[in-house]
Amino acid sequence: MSEIDYDSNKTFAAAVERSKKIEEDIAVNPTKYRVLTGDRPTGRLHIGHYFGSLQNRVRLSKMGVPTMILIADYQVLTDHDAFQEISQNTKQLVIDYLSAGIEPSENVIIYPHSYVPECNQLMLPFLTLVSNAELSRNPTVKEEIQSAGLKNVNAGMYTYPIHQACDILFCKGNVVPVGKDQLPHLELTRTIARRFNEKFCKDRDPVFPMPQALLSKTPSILGLDGSQKMSKSRGNAIFLSATEDETAALIKKAKTDADRNITYDPVNRPEVANILMLISLCTKEAPEAIAQRIGDGGGGMLKKMLTEALNEELRPLRQKRAELEKNPDYIRQVLLDGSERARAIAVKTLSEVREAMNMVI
Amino acid sequence: MSEIDYDSNKTFAAAVERSKKIEEDIAVNPTKYRVLTGDRPTGRLHIGHYFGSLQNRVRLSKMGVPTMILIADYQVLTDHDAFQEISQNTKQLVIDYLSAGIEPSENVIIYPHSYVPECNQLMLPFLTLVSNAELSRNPTVKEEIQSAGLKNVNAGMYTYPIHQACDILFCKGNVVPVGKDQLPHLELTRTIARRFNEKFCKDRDPVFPMPQALLSKTPSILGLDGSQKMSKSRGNAIFLSATEDETAALIKKAKTDADRNITYDPVNRPEVANILMLISLCTKEAPEAIAQRIGDGGGGMLKKMLTEALNEELRPLRQKRAELEKNPDYIRQVLLDGSERARAIAVKTLSEVREAMNMVI
Repeated sequence: MSEIDYDSNKTFAAAVERSKKIEEDIAVNPTKYRVLTGDRPTGRLHIGHYFGSLQNRVRLSKMGVPTMILIADYQVLTDHDAFQEISQNTKQLVIDYLSAGIEPSENVIIYPHSYVPECNQLMLPFLTLVSNAELSRNPTVKEEIQSAGLKNVNAGMYTYPIHQACDILFCKGNVVPVGKDQLPHLELTRTIARRFNEKFCKDRDPVFPMPQALLSKTPSILGLDGSQKMSKSRGNAIFLSATEDETAALIKKAKTDADRNITYDPVNRPEVANILMLISLCTKEAPEAIAQRIGDGGGGMLKKMLTEALNEELRPLRQKRAELEKNPDYIRQVLLDGSERARAIAVKTLSEVREAMNMVI
Repeated sequence: MSEIDYDSNKTFAAAVERSKKIEEDIAVNPTKYRVLTGDRPTGRLHIGHYFGSLQNRVRLSKMGVPTMILIADYQVLTDHDAFQEISQNTKQLVIDYLSAGIEPSENVIIYPHSYVPECNQLMLPFLTLVSNAELSRNPTVKEEIQSAGLKNVNAGMYTYPIHQACDILFCKGNVVPVGKDQLPHLELTRTIARRFNEKFCKDRDPVFPMPQALLSKTPSILGLDGSQKMSKSRGNAIFLSATEDETAALIKKAKTDADRNITYDPVNRPEVANILMLISLCTKEAPEAIAQRIGDGGGGMLKKMLTEALNEELRPLRQKRAELEKNPDYIRQVLLDGSERARAIAVKTLSEVREAMNMVI
């Protein structure tokens, strides 16, 4: 059994290369792929999610790529103590997805973890395919543990990359849109798939595909405080569900710098560059060109432009959001239909797993 | 969150006391309880299982105690590489159970792990309720790892006590027949049940019971080589499925000692004492009395008595075994019916778990 290679310096270039090739092929052969993506229902989505992942999901699903969108409700507990809002957050996520343009169908499936019991069944065989040492060495788990400030690491956090492997492989997902920090997890999923196939599928077709990373092309969005990633827990985010006035007020308080002359300089002026990039993501104009147009207009004009551009970009989404909010039965049905479809896929996979492992009675 | 107490010296006396009380109450209120017990399908059952656990299961189920018998097929992989025989072994276990007197019914349920996906769904919430440090400190896991000689501990072995918690709690098992070495595992299950109830059931009835150990009254059976536990992997066992001639041949080779005068002295003459005890388990005569009757008859007479007593004890079981072997469809149906019943129980529990965790959509 060859050891897993977590060395992201070595594998990142290869991942970028593979990601590009998949992008090209997806355009020609969308149904060769199944995308697995999703969120934990810890809150509503913000514009960081919107530009960073949601737009990409809409794009892929509209291209005809079968897409599984997992709402990982059980996984909220790996580093959150609060669970009172899980159900509400789950439904709000669905509203965010649909209002952004996701259209649920036979091939675009939105489902909560806790309604697809067959998915986690894979935990047992998968746990036996990974050594304890390999789990301990996972750099992203180490980092997440540090950032969550957990003194007493729980076993759910520790085995998190194995849950992810179940989430991806139960539906034979072969494309996973990720950021660089998620590559070690995906490497573990690939390792589990390979080990399962090598051990249990000697005399038959492999059960699992080798999932590939689809790396995000959007740079990471900073929070309005400029210094960190935009994040619901840090209070530096603009939610998709915010009103236009709330959006304006939040942007007014955004951090910029003392230089009235606006330039696009991500290294030395990260806060200003972040706002320019957000405008650019809305208007498709290059951030350098926007900076030039503002010139000596200063932070005030910069923020005004973002407010207008963002509220315009999000207006149709927010209108659809308001309509969907009035129809909770429909949201519920989307989740129930999605669960049923996900279960049908899971049952088929589990049956192959039982065959490969000689467990058919 | 109070720490788990693995200190078996302190808890063993308490466990013995609780076990006695449950025995008394079970006789009066059998339906207040649900027993969870089972085996991993790594081979057929031998007389160590028969006297050590199987007879007890038959006794409990005949008393009317609802009994779940889990065939833990996925868990074979935690410390076994071989998986080719899992399905065969599963069916042979059922034949062993039924021929020993287990009668499947609405309340006596035999099922393989891999056919009840809802059971392992509990892995996710339960993993988050246990710290990594607590898993590392589990003395039985440490010992099992050592005895299995695993250099590279896999995460399945490491998290084994949490799988057991799922197995016990998904069906709300409240009585678990165990030996002393399993008490730390059960302590973890109790801890998980308590933590789940404390965290998620503040405003509702607790979802999980606090399972109790029912300690075996039969001393551990040594192997025919006298020095170790009887075990299929050590080749020192008499299988229930052995013929009378095979049984005689195996006993002929059993280790005794040089002293022709037979006495019951478990400390100084463990091999002879083990054989005397096996005879006693068959004939119900006290081992001291048997020893006295043999007197200077020596190891030859001792073995002859065991051969006769054991073959007589097992004759009806072996006859039933032979009949059941001819009816694989029936064995299969027992497993399918059991799976269906176990799933119905699991679905109900999972639904309560979703409610408690605010995941109902």
